[in-house]
Amino acid sequence: MSTNREIHLASRPQGWPTADNFRLVETEVPTPGPGQIVVRNQFMSVDPYMRGRMNDVKSYVPPFQLGAPLDGGAVGEVVASEADGVKVGDTVLHGLGWREYALLDAKAARPVDPTIAPVSAYLSVLGMTGLTAYAGLLDVAGMKPGESVFVSAAAGSVGSLVGQIAKLKGAGHVVGSAGSAAKVERLKALGFDAAFDYHDGPVRDSLKAAAPDGIDVYFDNVGGDHLEAAISAMKLHGRAAICGMIAQYNDTQPPAAPRNLAMVIGKRLTLRGFLVGDHGNLREQFVRDVSGWLRDGKLTYDETIVDGIENAPEAFLGLLRGENLGKMLVRV
Amino acid sequence: MSTNREIHLASRPQGWPTADNFRLVETEVPTPGPGQIVVRNQFMSVDPYMRGRMNDVKSYVPPFQLGAPLDGGAVGEVVASEADGVKVGDTVLHGLGWREYALLDAKAARPVDPTIAPVSAYLSVLGMTGLTAYAGLLDVAGMKPGESVFVSAAAGSVGSLVGQIAKLKGAGHVVGSAGSAAKVERLKALGFDAAFDYHDGPVRDSLKAAAPDGIDVYFDNVGGDHLEAAISAMKLHGRAAICGMIAQYNDTQPPAAPRNLAMVIGKRLTLRGFLVGDHGNLREQFVRDVSGWLRDGKLTYDETIVDGIENAPEAFLGLLRGENLGKMLVRV
Repeated sequence: MSTNREIHLASRPQGWPTADNFRLVETEVPTPGPGQIVVRNQFMSVDPYMRGRMNDVKSYVPPFQLGAPLDGGAVGEVVASEADGVKVGDTVLHGLGWREYALLDAKAARPVDPTIAPVSAYLSVLGMTGLTAYAGLLDVAGMKPGESVFVSAAAGSVGSLVGQIAKLKGAGHVVGSAGSAAKVERLKALGFDAAFDYHDGPVRDSLKAAAPDGIDVYFDNVGGDHLEAAISAMKLHGRAAICGMIAQYNDTQPPAAPRNLAMVIGKRLTLRGFLVGDHGNLREQFVRDVSGWLRDGKLTYDETIVDGIENAPEAFLGLLRGENLGKMLVRV
Repeated sequence: MSTNREIHLASRPQGWPTADNFRLVETEVPTPGPGQIVVRNQFMSVDPYMRGRMNDVKSYVPPFQLGAPLDGGAVGEVVASEADGVKVGDTVLHGLGWREYALLDAKAARPVDPTIAPVSAYLSVLGMTGLTAYAGLLDVAGMKPGESVFVSAAAGSVGSLVGQIAKLKGAGHVVGSAGSAAKVERLKALGFDAAFDYHDGPVRDSLKAAAPDGIDVYFDNVGGDHLEAAISAMKLHGRAAICGMIAQYNDTQPPAAPRNLAMVIGKRLTLRGFLVGDHGNLREQFVRDVSGWLRDGKLTYDETIVDGIENAPEAFLGLLRGENLGKMLVRV
């Protein structure tokens, strides 16, 4: 086991990325220095925001570097430790995915308890994904009981939690959009009051049919026509939590923006972008709520698991194509 | 003095309105019934939002009716009263402008004190215009001392107050945009730290030059390229108070929207539309602040006064063309 495999950024994509933008590289399994640990990754997270990091553009996270491994959320088992307080066999969450073995400062890893939930859950429902849904819906958009909620990309990892958390927190009517009939069925099974396939017609029409009385809250993962439709459907004092705009991540031209933006005035709407990193203050409450819901069987999280680090690029490309149900993970 | 003149809506404009959309109509001076008063209007307010009311579109205020007088803020002297507590000679603020004599329920009029300020001030700095600036800047956008502020249409009635109030409340750097070199000079005289004519180049470039360190708050009266430029210039956690989008009121096609809207995510921006009517809770504090600033000579309000009710349509068209400095008023 002296070989480590990792995925490097081979070239930057123009528009949609392809397998050629990635390269599988064999290296040595690293040896920890003082204060460091080596983690054998078990699962790594594949997320839409990583598309932005493939561009050489200054943003809230630095771009991936050409010829260097990509990174991102991962969970695994400590196989070597030169750090006090971390021992071989511990399970930790950290930020060096896209490789089989990760060398990192012990301080950059957070221990997790594999007896509470499967370790993959720390990358999804109990991790950043779950907190994103929770904070965006309840804090950024400030959803109140009885309100109507619309979430796009609702069969994705964040969206499916948004819809379920909305119901658990007393939303009156929850609508989701997704990209296939099978996903729409899944949303209904998860307790969404209505769901539609955005391929079936203009989003504006589908949303109006699914939420004839309008919506109070929109959780945006998509942007574009979804955001425009949501603005049109919003009631007075509606709020949109803008989490992602996956519809335009691969655009090479500036995207069309909602042409009805002036409606924010008369309807007194709030559109608010957010990143989960700003909402760590909610973590304790989030873990308490979500752990309880999981224990009581009230919250379901779907996972789409791809095996093998060599298949991580394909998992990522599949995510951008919407092939996942729930959280897209690579079992390393 | 038995003749009353008023302006009716003769037809609905497509695109830019013209004088033909209005008609001057002579009627009788009305006689008050029980609980009613008749007001001889002295000044009437001309506002951009009235353009929207010329369309037959459901909105936050009902559309003007064809063949009926327009309405809007006005101030005048009571010339007949059948209402307890209101006597001939009182000065009142009410909502029936666009006519020489207004018949209304006394309850729909608010007495104002002409010894505190010129009566026209109750339509501008001490009225809805002033409260719009005050509430939008301090409540909707939540400006804090030391922050950088950008306001568009800054030589207009709301914009010029936004910039001055920002400075009075401790803003670090205040930038305004306007439509002529003379207006830009006026903004500098009013204490703006920087100002530019939006005809001089792309707004994005002009704003970057005027606020090289970025902005925390954008007060939007214009929309379109101004909003796009502001989003690009915003710092982390920036807020935009969306008050108006005059750039597109006369568009017959859906307007281009900010193509950089996805930046709201990484920069965690908030865009919030508002109407002054929701912020009456601030009125007391607003009057206290503004009265004090006026008394101390710290706040200046410009007025552009057009004489004669027959010239009210031209005053309104001039407002849409940006011919006013400060508040556009008709002296009836």
